[in-house]
Amino acid sequence: MAEPSPKKARVEYAHTRENFMKVYETLRDELLNDECLSPAGESAQAKAAQEWFKEVNDYNVPGGKLNRGMAVYDVLASVKGAESVSEEDVFKANALGWCIEWLQAFFLVADDIMDGSITRRGQPCWYKQPKVGMIACNDYILLDCCIYRVLRKHFRGHPAYAQLVDLFHEVTFQTSHGQLLDLTTAPIGSVDLTKYTSDNYLRIVTYKTAYYSFYLPVACGMVLAGIEDPAAFDLAQKICVEMGQYFQIQDDYLDCYGDPEVIGKIGTDIEDNKCSWLVCTALQVASEEQKEVIKAHYGRKEAESVAAIKALYRELALEQRFKDYEAASYAKLDATISEQTLLPKAVFSSLLAKIYKRKK
Amino acid sequence: MAEPSPKKARVEYAHTRENFMKVYETLRDELLNDECLSPAGESAQAKAAQEWFKEVNDYNVPGGKLNRGMAVYDVLASVKGAESVSEEDVFKANALGWCIEWLQAFFLVADDIMDGSITRRGQPCWYKQPKVGMIACNDYILLDCCIYRVLRKHFRGHPAYAQLVDLFHEVTFQTSHGQLLDLTTAPIGSVDLTKYTSDNYLRIVTYKTAYYSFYLPVACGMVLAGIEDPAAFDLAQKICVEMGQYFQIQDDYLDCYGDPEVIGKIGTDIEDNKCSWLVCTALQVASEEQKEVIKAHYGRKEAESVAAIKALYRELALEQRFKDYEAASYAKLDATISEQTLLPKAVFSSLLAKIYKRKK
Repeated sequence: MAEPSPKKARVEYAHTRENFMKVYETLRDELLNDECLSPAGESAQAKAAQEWFKEVNDYNVPGGKLNRGMAVYDVLASVKGAESVSEEDVFKANALGWCIEWLQAFFLVADDIMDGSITRRGQPCWYKQPKVGMIACNDYILLDCCIYRVLRKHFRGHPAYAQLVDLFHEVTFQTSHGQLLDLTTAPIGSVDLTKYTSDNYLRIVTYKTAYYSFYLPVACGMVLAGIEDPAAFDLAQKICVEMGQYFQIQDDYLDCYGDPEVIGKIGTDIEDNKCSWLVCTALQVASEEQKEVIKAHYGRKEAESVAAIKALYRELALEQRFKDYEAASYAKLDATISEQTLLPKAVFSSLLAKIYKRKK
Repeated sequence: MAEPSPKKARVEYAHTRENFMKVYETLRDELLNDECLSPAGESAQAKAAQEWFKEVNDYNVPGGKLNRGMAVYDVLASVKGAESVSEEDVFKANALGWCIEWLQAFFLVADDIMDGSITRRGQPCWYKQPKVGMIACNDYILLDCCIYRVLRKHFRGHPAYAQLVDLFHEVTFQTSHGQLLDLTTAPIGSVDLTKYTSDNYLRIVTYKTAYYSFYLPVACGMVLAGIEDPAAFDLAQKICVEMGQYFQIQDDYLDCYGDPEVIGKIGTDIEDNKCSWLVCTALQVASEEQKEVIKAHYGRKEAESVAAIKALYRELALEQRFKDYEAASYAKLDATISEQTLLPKAVFSSLLAKIYKRKK
């Protein structure tokens, strides 16, 4: 056949980063000319604000892996079948996908200020730009506002408009609650290793990462597909939370054991005193003597301290413990996905396939 | 009569700070036990987060004048007549009023971080508390979330639910746009007096203050009263923006000419290089020579510089210019309010009466 079928064309549209980026540019340009803002043609002042707003968006929103944002379409296609997804729904799925990316951008800008981070996604953190500084505190409010302006513009007449708005609010609340759990469990500058338990770890990870990274894209796709059964959303949440925990545990593993060339950064969780799965697991299985090693060396910048912790991780066979955890977690998730009948298995299995045994 | 009439009781209920505060406590306790959060009974970690969240709220939300929050009921009563407002609607009006106070709290916490402020409402700024610091960046996200959790809990079934949620988003976007206009017009540490024009001043004030302080309570009251005509909301916005401008200009006047005993603080707009109505007006009428005085002395902490600016303000008769502005502004607002027929005049005249010639 000389011409690609419309079905094929649509699938390609949704799955290239380039085309997903085009949707970003459309949405961003709409935001720059939002009727709520002072018209930029009006004055040099309003024009300067518009240019700043553009830069806040371009610097912080599109530079990530975009996995979360692009997953909304995948979920929609898994539920409805790719051939039944109209061009309009592809755009809507991608607009919701970008709302997730905006949410992530907003939290990352705030995170970097709180953590005093230096770089993010291979460039200086936004607040580290000399002209920005603490203005970033207002900039991430603006990034948060973008979510609801996009929802309003593209979903105001949708029967699930209120549900979508509620969903983004709920997940924002859960994510900032996760930040609070994290900040109060491991306050900057003071360490209390008795708080680094598995329960505390999983609670932080669930709220801080799992809801927005996994449940949010799945729920957005489900809403677009017209699913209304609350039991289906509850089930999706349960599976996504487990997947999100698994994803973050991988992240913690890769920080120590991943190839810096592949993951694109050199892990510093040990130096930064992070409440990581590795240290939580180590504390669970360590002898009193080994716990003393952790107390003495965890959260220190010195190379010898990092080496002492890594040696202890080796003694405790943490790599193998991770691999055992990974296998068990995968088997459990796979069984839950297979056994449930409320949603097509592809909704979850395609997500799981993307992260299982990932190297970055 | 031995018993107060129900009508009287309702009006008193809405208008005492004590009873308004009781609604705050109800809403806050609901938030602390929100189903989105990890149950505090579950662990020491979740309990610590709950306690922190309570303190964030109690420290930052209820300590202001509460004029904005308490105005929602006044507007509702002006439209429907106090005798037609049910107990349930009084509660709803006050819940919306508290949403406005939450919005203000969230912006004030962020503002204080950006401005490097020391005190707020007679106590150290939240971020200045030793245990808080940059955690405040997450705390004001939580304060913002509270708005939408309250709306969801108490208005999810209301026919205007989406309109209310949209309204709070719009005003949040406008307010952070106003912050951006302000931050880029008068960047901390560098001054460009050519930007201190009347147009720029009014644009900042409109977005940063007028929408949330005046339009938001009025629009909330109108929604509760069942008003649907978009023309009525447009008119209210126009009047409220003018009133908000007038209010902020008074604020700037009082910063320099108010009695510190009465306003409760010593004004420092001159030292802080603020884009105040006074300096904008001075620059408009000053000779080249007088402009040099402003350039040399505005935004400096030295007592001689402050005195030089105050002397120049005297030369330029700024107190009289303010009084002329105040009279003209009042006359214009009063005429607009009288001439319009879309809304009861009391909606606006009661607000205006509260701020006209205010001393604090």
